[in-house]
Amino acid sequence: MLVVAALGGNALLRRGEPPEITRQVANIRTAARALAEIAREHALVVTHGNGPQVGLLALRSGDPLYMLSAETEGMIGYMIETALRNELPARDIAGLLTQIAVDPDDPAFAAPGKPIGPIYDEAQARRLASEHGWTIAPDGDGYRHVVPSPRPLRILEIETIKLLVQSGILVICAGGGGIPVIECETGWRGMEAVIDKDHASALLARELGADALLMLTDVDAVFADWDGAKASPLGAVSTDDLHEHDFAPGSMGPKVEAAIDFAEATGHMAGIGRLQDAAAILRGEAGTRVTA
Amino acid sequence: MLVVAALGGNALLRRGEPPEITRQVANIRTAARALAEIAREHALVVTHGNGPQVGLLALRSGDPLYMLSAETEGMIGYMIETALRNELPARDIAGLLTQIAVDPDDPAFAAPGKPIGPIYDEAQARRLASEHGWTIAPDGDGYRHVVPSPRPLRILEIETIKLLVQSGILVICAGGGGIPVIECETGWRGMEAVIDKDHASALLARELGADALLMLTDVDAVFADWDGAKASPLGAVSTDDLHEHDFAPGSMGPKVEAAIDFAEATGHMAGIGRLQDAAAILRGEAGTRVTA
Repeated sequence: MLVVAALGGNALLRRGEPPEITRQVANIRTAARALAEIAREHALVVTHGNGPQVGLLALRSGDPLYMLSAETEGMIGYMIETALRNELPARDIAGLLTQIAVDPDDPAFAAPGKPIGPIYDEAQARRLASEHGWTIAPDGDGYRHVVPSPRPLRILEIETIKLLVQSGILVICAGGGGIPVIECETGWRGMEAVIDKDHASALLARELGADALLMLTDVDAVFADWDGAKASPLGAVSTDDLHEHDFAPGSMGPKVEAAIDFAEATGHMAGIGRLQDAAAILRGEAGTRVTA
Repeated sequence: MLVVAALGGNALLRRGEPPEITRQVANIRTAARALAEIAREHALVVTHGNGPQVGLLALRSGDPLYMLSAETEGMIGYMIETALRNELPARDIAGLLTQIAVDPDDPAFAAPGKPIGPIYDEAQARRLASEHGWTIAPDGDGYRHVVPSPRPLRILEIETIKLLVQSGILVICAGGGGIPVIECETGWRGMEAVIDKDHASALLARELGADALLMLTDVDAVFADWDGAKASPLGAVSTDDLHEHDFAPGSMGPKVEAAIDFAEATGHMAGIGRLQDAAAILRGEAGTRVTA
């Protein structure tokens, strides 16, 4: 069985945690234990988010977002690769830089909606917005830097990823949703955007013909009626059931959309749940399991 | 024929140039044209330095050097991959994160000797050294941040690189000399060091059984009597001839050592010269060609 597992950026750097490398390394060790449990039985491809990390790099540097995404593929990919190697010493593990084509006319470019980096109070957020030219938007009790998040259309390295998977190599790829690129008259170039890693992972899982897609985060499951008094976790659920609910666009929304996308396109299961439950979600014993 | 080509960090960001991304992208386009000329005829693996870039990241961030090396593998790897794809649209190209094992007892850890980042005047250098805890050393007319540069011993992803090369994929790997790691009781971990990319490239070329190793930089050839009045470029030269000369430890020294290492271990040619002459060096028409 081939499993694509997407690690939330928050699984690497939790909300409110200081961004020290030692902290991220410790969190990734926890993630690697959960993933190794799956990799001992199945072929595994790991993807990861970069929201907290790319936001911090944007604070330090005026470099464009595609370049910062490339930097986070290096740093987070390295941390995951090392942590997985320490759990699975005999396994070949490869971290692959990944570029994903997007549509230059994607409406997301005119409506930045993906929050990255820390949560600021309003005054801080307004100062940073004017300093860096950022768009900001409310998030929870504060404000965050928001960036365009276009739909992923094509993974440029897909043939290489297939080859590695077929050869039994554990692959880390599509980090941060992939580096967003477009093809224009002068060739390929990067775009000022961050692709949603759940959508990128669903595309990857479809193209690889994966048997399951896991989206791993810091909550137990998708909750129906999330904001209401009767919030209840969803277990086994059909894509039809999910179409009846609304989910927060910033966090659970993209996961639910990606799960529906994968389940409807392939007939296979997409799971959403807590990182530590990864193997249990796959066995149908935890998290939300979405099928068509 | 399989060629390993190592791009100097200075080929990407020339001495004294402002570190804007647009500048690096333009320089890398020039590099990609030279490399594509080789890739149209031969299997090619590209490695690259990161001296200027890792030094700039160290100015912005307190993160350890192995993490900054990982970031530069992402950013420089992305730039090279895109530039090569624009020259060779039909070719599969893969940028692989690469970790290289070093000896924790390598004497380099007690004697930082590899310069990274910009050249500073003495006052600036002393201020930065005390601010960041850097070791500094004279370089040309000024001072630079110097870091430990241990010998590369083993490329952790070598089996993956071999597989990709055998499958006809153009591989970018061992960027910045690879991310330096050691194996300790608790597993693999990163080290506060930057491996010399020419030594890493010679190790890679040996392990891949490459037919030629090219070290591409911004000078025409290795010069005998570099500092003297009778400086003359070396063309075809034997490793025995080279043993008779001394070369500057910061720049040409590691290239000459790496060339001797590769040529003596394999009996094949190691070339050193100008990036734009890459194909001509391979044909024996430019640069310094070292054989055993």
